[in-house]
Amino acid sequence: MPTTKTTAEGRFAYGGLDRLFHERARLAILTTLASRPSGVAFADLKALCSLTDGNLSRHLRQLRDAGVIDMRKKADTGRPRTLLRISAEGRRRFLAYLDVLEAVVRDAAVASRGEAPRPARGGSDPGFLPA
Amino acid sequence: MPTTKTTAEGRFAYGGLDRLFHERARLAILTTLASRPSGVAFADLKALCSLTDGNLSRHLRQLRDAGVIDMRKKADTGRPRTLLRISAEGRRRFLAYLDVLEAVVRDAAVASRGEAPRPARGGSDPGFLPA
Repeated sequence: MPTTKTTAEGRFAYGGLDRLFHERARLAILTTLASRPSGVAFADLKALCSLTDGNLSRHLRQLRDAGVIDMRKKADTGRPRTLLRISAEGRRRFLAYLDVLEAVVRDAAVASRGEAPRPARGGSDPGFLPA
Repeated sequence: MPTTKTTAEGRFAYGGLDRLFHERARLAILTTLASRPSGVAFADLKALCSLTDGNLSRHLRQLRDAGVIDMRKKADTGRPRTLLRISAEGRRRFLAYLDVLEAVVRDAAVASRGEAPRPARGGSDPGFLPA
């Protein structure tokens, strides 16, 4: 069964787009935790990501079970609170996911807007040359 | 219940990250279709996105029911084949989704790598100034 020859098998498969990080709420959680290496309190994370207690708890368990975050109870002022942190392994995997996500955004921008990919940082953008 | 004042309610909620487009397979499908406005045959789309017949069919039905793609049968060489195209409404919504996804990638890059956001197209990057 012949197909057009301009197709490249799996060109848009994005296998590296790890579903653990790609889910919207978990993407929000990881972006928040990555920006605060010293940790974020449960209540703050909930507010920043606009999640309910139940929803946030469920996603945090998944992330902890996957080894990408640490959860610890602190009782610094008598009342215990939960502090969440991204793990070293979590940061490594999140960066790898982010590389794929950036490739998707470049592909989609070119596809949808006819934009040339942005140059690498520090590079110059030659723009489109006239034919 | 006081929380730290550096939190901005919903800062990382990403409500515009439309779940219709954010799912990995559908993101692949839409990126492919956006790059080929004249349409893509089912078999080619399947190969480009590395999906099975059943999986691709299921996602295409969801996208068609949401009005973001058109599906039509063509019988140009006697054997009918299905041609898929992004709709005008689909392109508009996909571009809006893409704007949010770009914001997420910028946030996450800053959060994870301490990178400054990239300048707008055509702008110059002043880099980090010494304090």
